[in-house]
Amino acid sequence: MDKLSLQNPLFVTYAIAAAIMILKAASMSWLTVVRMMQVKAGFRSPEDLKKTPLNRDPDPKQLEPNEAVERIRRIHMNDLENIPFFLAAGFLFVLTDPSLLLARVLLYGYVGTRLLHFLAYLTGRTHDTRATLWTPGSLIILYMAGRTLYVALGL
Amino acid sequence: MDKLSLQNPLFVTYAIAAAIMILKAASMSWLTVVRMMQVKAGFRSPEDLKKTPLNRDPDPKQLEPNEAVERIRRIHMNDLENIPFFLAAGFLFVLTDPSLLLARVLLYGYVGTRLLHFLAYLTGRTHDTRATLWTPGSLIILYMAGRTLYVALGL
Amino acid sequence: MDKLSLQNPLFVTYAIAAAIMILKAASMSWLTVVRMMQVKAGFRSPEDLKKTPLNRDPDPKQLEPNEAVERIRRIHMNDLENIPFFLAAGFLFVLTDPSLLLARVLLYGYVGTRLLHFLAYLTGRTHDTRATLWTPGSLIILYMAGRTLYVALGL
Repeated sequence: MDKLSLQNPLFVTYAIAAAIMILKAASMSWLTVVRMMQVKAGFRSPEDLKKTPLNRDPDPKQLEPNEAVERIRRIHMNDLENIPFFLAAGFLFVLTDPSLLLARVLLYGYVGTRLLHFLAYLTGRTHDTRATLWTPGSLIILYMAGRTLYVALGL
Repeated sequence: MDKLSLQNPLFVTYAIAAAIMILKAASMSWLTVVRMMQVKAGFRSPEDLKKTPLNRDPDPKQLEPNEAVERIRRIHMNDLENIPFFLAAGFLFVLTDPSLLLARVLLYGYVGTRLLHFLAYLTGRTHDTRATLWTPGSLIILYMAGRTLYVALGL
Repeated sequence: MDKLSLQNPLFVTYAIAAAIMILKAASMSWLTVVRMMQVKAGFRSPEDLKKTPLNRDPDPKQLEPNEAVERIRRIHMNDLENIPFFLAAGFLFVLTDPSLLLARVLLYGYVGTRLLHFLAYLTGRTHDTRATLWTPGSLIILYMAGRTLYVALGL
């Protein structure tokens, strides 16, 4: 069967996990916007202090870091450090022809732990909790890339 | 026809849009370099204050943020938050077998609005203008990922 | 032969280079963790000052930037600015059916110069050395994306 067909259960598993992670990462920009609108602060560019329909009472303090906004930016940054590599590693991984069970455990496991990590970060849980929820996802990326390398090298 | 053939109009549409966006994002690093050379400032690492052929008169002020350079870094950061997800979502989207017209509208529409967003950010237009030009691209990513999820789930 | 087969030498070249770069980028998070544990500082979130098994003596100074940690973050950021675009450009490039020799030179050349760039950045070499090692990789990305565009446009 065509490897990249959305009839192929292995590729379907990848496509579902990848699409959810893309939706998640792209939503962080919107969450940043929502927070900036709520606190009317956390802007970054000098021109954001111009009076416009979206900012009727500009104030230089709006350019100072605002923790409610910075938290979302940190979460977003964490996504940028992880999700693009998940998308690439997961794609290469399904081309190594793993079992469907393994693919589902790793790809959906990644999605599950990343969503839990997001909730923990959003609600300000301890560093230990956040680290515990980040670790499986990172190990899954390393495993998928490592397996790709192993198979590609013909080992 | 082979889905990933550069004879397949659907994949060609993706390849053109993706290549332009990669060229755009990779050019931001060079634009940062050009700006740093112009203002001889905006450096970030302590070792950048060593006297070298490219920095003949080091000065500790060179490590302070410089708005001309920081503007490009913000634009670059915005690219990192958007383009990798466009590249992945667009690829999955063309595998869902959309009409060629829809693919062209979304993929080239993304490229067009991102280039306009770049010009607006570079020239310091108001936040409202920048937001208006950023929004279609983000919605296109969300739509393409959403459609992938919908098709992959067999809905 | 199937373009995305790990029997196809061209795709194998891409898969090896991509997997190494994914492993490299994903390792930066771990290196950040190692450095943060060594200096017990360089944290970023207010909640990281809570007393936990991993942080038994919290101190507000732990939230200040720490150069040993910031260096790894700058390296990581440089990866985020480069590697996702390498992964996408390299994939499209091998689909343009280049010679195996050219693919090996560019893809393995990218990996080699990025690893040298990492060592130069980690050990605080001059900006000139770092720039010299960063440049080939950026040019390789631009070439691969440019070639994709050229072929896709049927020029």
